[in-house]
Amino acid sequence: MKAVIIDEDGLQVKDVEKPQVEVGRAIVKISAAALNRRDQWIREGLYPKIELPVLPGSDGCGVVQEVGDEQDKKWLNKRVVINPNNDWGDNPNVQARSYHILGMPTKGTFAEYISVPVDRLVEAPKFLTDEEAGALPLGGVTAYNALMNKGQASADKKILISGVGGGVAQFAMQFAIAIGAQVWVTSSKQDVIDKCVEMGAKGGVSYKEHSEIVALSKSIKGFDTIIDSAGGEGIDTLLKSLAPNGRYVLYGATKGLPSTLNLRNIFWNQLAILGSTMGSDQDFVNMVQLVEKYQIKTIIDKVFPLERAVEAFDRIKNTKVFGKIVLRP
Amino acid sequence: MKAVIIDEDGLQVKDVEKPQVEVGRAIVKISAAALNRRDQWIREGLYPKIELPVLPGSDGCGVVQEVGDEQDKKWLNKRVVINPNNDWGDNPNVQARSYHILGMPTKGTFAEYISVPVDRLVEAPKFLTDEEAGALPLGGVTAYNALMNKGQASADKKILISGVGGGVAQFAMQFAIAIGAQVWVTSSKQDVIDKCVEMGAKGGVSYKEHSEIVALSKSIKGFDTIIDSAGGEGIDTLLKSLAPNGRYVLYGATKGLPSTLNLRNIFWNQLAILGSTMGSDQDFVNMVQLVEKYQIKTIIDKVFPLERAVEAFDRIKNTKVFGKIVLRP
Repeated sequence: MKAVIIDEDGLQVKDVEKPQVEVGRAIVKISAAALNRRDQWIREGLYPKIELPVLPGSDGCGVVQEVGDEQDKKWLNKRVVINPNNDWGDNPNVQARSYHILGMPTKGTFAEYISVPVDRLVEAPKFLTDEEAGALPLGGVTAYNALMNKGQASADKKILISGVGGGVAQFAMQFAIAIGAQVWVTSSKQDVIDKCVEMGAKGGVSYKEHSEIVALSKSIKGFDTIIDSAGGEGIDTLLKSLAPNGRYVLYGATKGLPSTLNLRNIFWNQLAILGSTMGSDQDFVNMVQLVEKYQIKTIIDKVFPLERAVEAFDRIKNTKVFGKIVLRP
Repeated sequence: MKAVIIDEDGLQVKDVEKPQVEVGRAIVKISAAALNRRDQWIREGLYPKIELPVLPGSDGCGVVQEVGDEQDKKWLNKRVVINPNNDWGDNPNVQARSYHILGMPTKGTFAEYISVPVDRLVEAPKFLTDEEAGALPLGGVTAYNALMNKGQASADKKILISGVGGGVAQFAMQFAIAIGAQVWVTSSKQDVIDKCVEMGAKGGVSYKEHSEIVALSKSIKGFDTIIDSAGGEGIDTLLKSLAPNGRYVLYGATKGLPSTLNLRNIFWNQLAILGSTMGSDQDFVNMVQLVEKYQIKTIIDKVFPLERAVEAFDRIKNTKVFGKIVLRP
């Protein structure tokens, strides 16, 4: 079968052996798989504990073609999305040490077929296309945990989603709007902000304009929840933009530490800084249910055939992208 | 009556007018009042929004001598502790903007008599002496909120109390031990650590020895909750010492920002950094109930007559003190 492989020679589409079905597992014929920054970071050697060769891909939708066990035959021919968690462990609040994400070291979704444990399968929401369903898993579950668990989002909350161009951020924005929260966004691109307002956001400002973020915050008496993955100088600005007892959720920190941070603001206003990453298996199920309940359509940037994976990977480096980049085998 | 006054001439004990009873209020004859660092900070001009002259004192125990309303006569001759919160507001999780602490701008407990709203009165636990009860309010409620609400302390938790010489820290240690948690402490003084171990702590290390804190943490697979008011370089060490999904509660930050901070540790291990200050009126009631349930005796350093207030204030600057410093009118 055709698959994307990252090895010493870089990223290529190669012919590899099709996986065989095993006990407790299913073979899924992939119809659509989506890129995450994680995939590009692995390509660039920037992810921890890379073991070459890698068959990347954490996101996928497909049809179950074979199952290893008689009792799992009910899954045959079902259209499914794949839960990208492996070995989350017993604590719903945090993953175990053995936890790993589908697509390194285990073989990922950027292939014609994948073998996964049957308990990783969840029926794909019927109203989503293959591309929309296939782009849901990793970003969706990460946004769900950050927004709903850590951020305690609800209809009465004022929520800021920073850097809304990112995959997780766009899901967080869509989920927050769907549940009836008042949502604002930051982006460096006015057309992205405009698109978010069309989708139901109250407004947005550039994340480069710290004083505008603070002014927006003052005009609404502070955000209850801020969802961020940049960190950097923005941390101080975003913490200043929280209402008393507000929640700042950090699911990444691409820009590092800020040079100043008002610690008195943190303790006097009883703020919470909450680290978040991925989400539990239950979060994954809850996220798919949320998507079904509110009929949330994944934002798609562009679809490539699997053979053009190099082009798709190059495109995710481009920060102007808004929406998920999808591969179709 | 005699009272401690801070004005342009500094701190003195002066004769001032005894307060008159008013509707909704009570006159309490103070039997014991305790110092907090806040009082010394006001003396040094280091507290926000100081309005001179100040009659300081947030902690006190006494007997109700007069009440303004017929319906409040049940309080007469009762031995009470005074809830130091004023105008907490409607949100149990965070104080309103109008919130202020007893003892500036309102007249505090370092006097023979005080006028307080009747709803600030809580019966003093019978098993406590006047000094022990009088030293409970501010430190007790601050420790309760930090440990029980923000820190989610319970019998199955491993908890580190940093800088255990502080008033809030000592209450947090006592409360955590009382509810059955495994408790460790940091202090720069071995005799303080020894005293804490006598009181039920599992052990302790110097907060200056960052590698020892990390080693201790590794030996017990990480702390579930850390209660800190120092901040500074210790923040990074303490965050590294948390178990996955651990809670770092900050109720002060005397040492400022750290020079480095592992942000990936925060989000990948889903850590929580929780600012905490004081506690709600309900927290105050819950705290007194906790003290009664577990018969927790306040640690007293030294008792001074009110006339020797200057000496008592000078003593709180001395970081070798372990236990509360009490004034008796």
